[in-house]
Amino acid sequence: MTTERASLSEIFSPRGVAVVGVTPSGLSSFATGVVFSLVQAGFPAVYPVNPKYTEVLGLLCYPSVRDIPGIVDNVIVSIPAESVLALLDDCTAKKVKSVQFFTAGFSESGYAERAELEKAVLRKAQAGGFRIIGPNCVGISVPRSRFVTSQGLPPEPGPVAFISQSGGHAWNLPYFGSPRGLRFSQVVSYGNALDVDESELLDYLAQDPEVKIIAAYIEGVKNGRRFFDVLKAAAARKPVAIYKGGTTEAGQRTTFGHTASLTSSVAVFDVLCRQAKSILVDDMDELADVTVALRFARPIPQGTGVAVVGAGGGPSVLASDEMEKAGLRVPRLSSEVQTQLRQFLPLAGSIFGNPIDAPNLTVPEAISATMRLLGRVTDIHMMLYHMGFHPISRWGDSRRSWAPLLGPIAEALMTAQRATGKPVLVALCPPPDVAGMSDFLPAQETFVKAGFPVFHSMQQAARAMARVVAWNQSR
Amino acid sequence: MTTERASLSEIFSPRGVAVVGVTPSGLSSFATGVVFSLVQAGFPAVYPVNPKYTEVLGLLCYPSVRDIPGIVDNVIVSIPAESVLALLDDCTAKKVKSVQFFTAGFSESGYAERAELEKAVLRKAQAGGFRIIGPNCVGISVPRSRFVTSQGLPPEPGPVAFISQSGGHAWNLPYFGSPRGLRFSQVVSYGNALDVDESELLDYLAQDPEVKIIAAYIEGVKNGRRFFDVLKAAAARKPVAIYKGGTTEAGQRTTFGHTASLTSSVAVFDVLCRQAKSILVDDMDELADVTVALRFARPIPQGTGVAVVGAGGGPSVLASDEMEKAGLRVPRLSSEVQTQLRQFLPLAGSIFGNPIDAPNLTVPEAISATMRLLGRVTDIHMMLYHMGFHPISRWGDSRRSWAPLLGPIAEALMTAQRATGKPVLVALCPPPDVAGMSDFLPAQETFVKAGFPVFHSMQQAARAMARVVAWNQSR
Repeated sequence: MTTERASLSEIFSPRGVAVVGVTPSGLSSFATGVVFSLVQAGFPAVYPVNPKYTEVLGLLCYPSVRDIPGIVDNVIVSIPAESVLALLDDCTAKKVKSVQFFTAGFSESGYAERAELEKAVLRKAQAGGFRIIGPNCVGISVPRSRFVTSQGLPPEPGPVAFISQSGGHAWNLPYFGSPRGLRFSQVVSYGNALDVDESELLDYLAQDPEVKIIAAYIEGVKNGRRFFDVLKAAAARKPVAIYKGGTTEAGQRTTFGHTASLTSSVAVFDVLCRQAKSILVDDMDELADVTVALRFARPIPQGTGVAVVGAGGGPSVLASDEMEKAGLRVPRLSSEVQTQLRQFLPLAGSIFGNPIDAPNLTVPEAISATMRLLGRVTDIHMMLYHMGFHPISRWGDSRRSWAPLLGPIAEALMTAQRATGKPVLVALCPPPDVAGMSDFLPAQETFVKAGFPVFHSMQQAARAMARVVAWNQSR
Repeated sequence: MTTERASLSEIFSPRGVAVVGVTPSGLSSFATGVVFSLVQAGFPAVYPVNPKYTEVLGLLCYPSVRDIPGIVDNVIVSIPAESVLALLDDCTAKKVKSVQFFTAGFSESGYAERAELEKAVLRKAQAGGFRIIGPNCVGISVPRSRFVTSQGLPPEPGPVAFISQSGGHAWNLPYFGSPRGLRFSQVVSYGNALDVDESELLDYLAQDPEVKIIAAYIEGVKNGRRFFDVLKAAAARKPVAIYKGGTTEAGQRTTFGHTASLTSSVAVFDVLCRQAKSILVDDMDELADVTVALRFARPIPQGTGVAVVGAGGGPSVLASDEMEKAGLRVPRLSSEVQTQLRQFLPLAGSIFGNPIDAPNLTVPEAISATMRLLGRVTDIHMMLYHMGFHPISRWGDSRRSWAPLLGPIAEALMTAQRATGKPVLVALCPPPDVAGMSDFLPAQETFVKAGFPVFHSMQQAARAMARVVAWNQSR
């Protein structure tokens, strides 16, 4: 007998959550970390479960799911695979809506008996009327429901949905993306995709009006035909960026060991994703960069012409090469425009042809005049401002702080963006030390808060913008 | 009349240095920053020069180079191009050995009269018996002479020589490379290469016994024939890694505006560099990565087979793809070896085929056993250990510190490297915030001090090692 099972919408807003497998010390327990995250996010009904303890993190700890007095919609499981079937009977009795298996050691282990166990889990869930997330995942976080199971995730909701077969990567994008302004509607690590899979998730997210951008890390799809139908429909509504893990022989072998994913031809996947008008990227860094570009480039550039503006000859040469290698163009400025630039940029230490490199391109007035002039050039579709990839801070005998300049620079860039209708991108290089980071982070925050896409290298800016422009032109 | 001019050896160990163009405040003066660096490095005879001031940074400030009482071997110039000819007469009178022109605005400006001025500078230097570094550079630093003009450079000397046409990049490699263990014999920013050029520098560094590795950033070569002869001879003695700026149309246009460099065919440059058995890289990050690999991989791997070891499924898939895309191989382990691995790695959450991913690969004993086993596999030529690209620190309710484990992990890796005779590489991902960096930096330092090459992404490790192995096999 199969009961009506919960929708993703219900799964994403549980009324009570049980966490099975907690220990009093967070040092060795993943589950205890989850309890901590839920409490920190203000989720009101968290129930730690472990028969060995009576209290965890100051919360009452229950011997089993059945013993919890309140409603439990979601159960997070972090106990050995061998013990899960008995637990599922408790879940059925408690009428839960979904179970997230952080537990690993199922089909991905390569052992037949573990694959059988996984099938038994699915049968129990179907009979018991609940859904399975995972196994072998780190589950769901939905900030607007305060249902946040990971400490790396910012508590404020935002327009980016991220689904990931890898738990590590599910954590990676929010951790690295949030300082660059990314905020999330849902982050779903779905592991082996035993029940809830990439197609169901994508279909749901395509229709969720709070989701404006979908990012995905996929190792293998369960049903290719359905996936590409869903992807096509989703990509027609909103941008979908995908990083496919396992594009080489070794990579494919590893995805099988990781999430029991079997990939068919990478070339076919690639072609179908492009036909569906989604954006395929090469790694997690690029997934973050493309998501940042989609989120903050205002508007998406209408062509490949880029003007590079900032102080520093070496970075200007590097930027030129990286832009053109990625498929963007760095159009040479006419001598007329160059003559105009010379009116407010000095001769010594400057380059005028595009890139535009001048020592005073740290002064808001010079930046503003330069950007407004460039934005009027037909062949320029976007302007990249960089800070020379020098440290944002120390030089000379005393500290030369950029801090007072940052606000006015961001304002000058924003005014130029509005006046020209062409997007301004910002490139800032993270320094390798704590002192440098202490200066870098407020600078980055200034540009992020002002609404700019911030990239951490010329190459990352070039590749992400080339992908986004190509995608935009293909629609 | 042309006098006998100084050798590079003399230029690299001046007895006294005049810095022309200082101001009392370091905020706006590049020259004052140089004075500060020299003082900080303990250089004994620094003479600030500016007729407007009597004291700079607590040092007596002289009205002109002629007025300095002591010996002046080197003059650093940071005054407008228009004023330099008069200054050079002072240099002739003072019998200096070299003049470094931080001043820009010469031939690279594109103006005929500035190109003429540059020629006049060279004639004065030839007649006056001194050499010119630059113009349009940030000059020379030689830690063993305490002749350090840049604050980014570690004061301890080391085996890496770096020559760079870009001042920004001359600063970049030491700043980003020093936390990864790079130390420098010389760093020379030579700008427009009016007099001292890349060939002369390379020829000298090839013969300097303190230099074990040469890194170079080159925009254009003055004399192609001579350069490739010198490069061939240098590369026969020690590894030479080159990043060539200006490999695209826009890049080449920019190198002309930057250092007045005219590049002939990029393809020809590429072929000749490879024929000379040097290592060509694609950007500054890769130059740092390859230099780190050359410096710390012990020994250089004898083939392309890599074993990837660490906790994390997503990173393991990523590593597999990156290694194979870069041209390395991730050989599948035999079932015999996999069975042996299962004796000390758990089933759940693990991958055994290579990459080897297991939750206990943070425990020194498990790492040691795994590495020793892998090092005995014929097809494995190097072992990459990674920390899963998760944060090195926080998880759960309390702080799970890796700190006490780091030393033992490094020791386990070093023992495995010694026992197997195959190099161990380390991949650690720098976090995006100050709290993360505070944990990351001591971890990185532990591995660097233990003598490992540390890479900041799977891609960087893969590309650098692929280049170094290909170079080693071509010799």
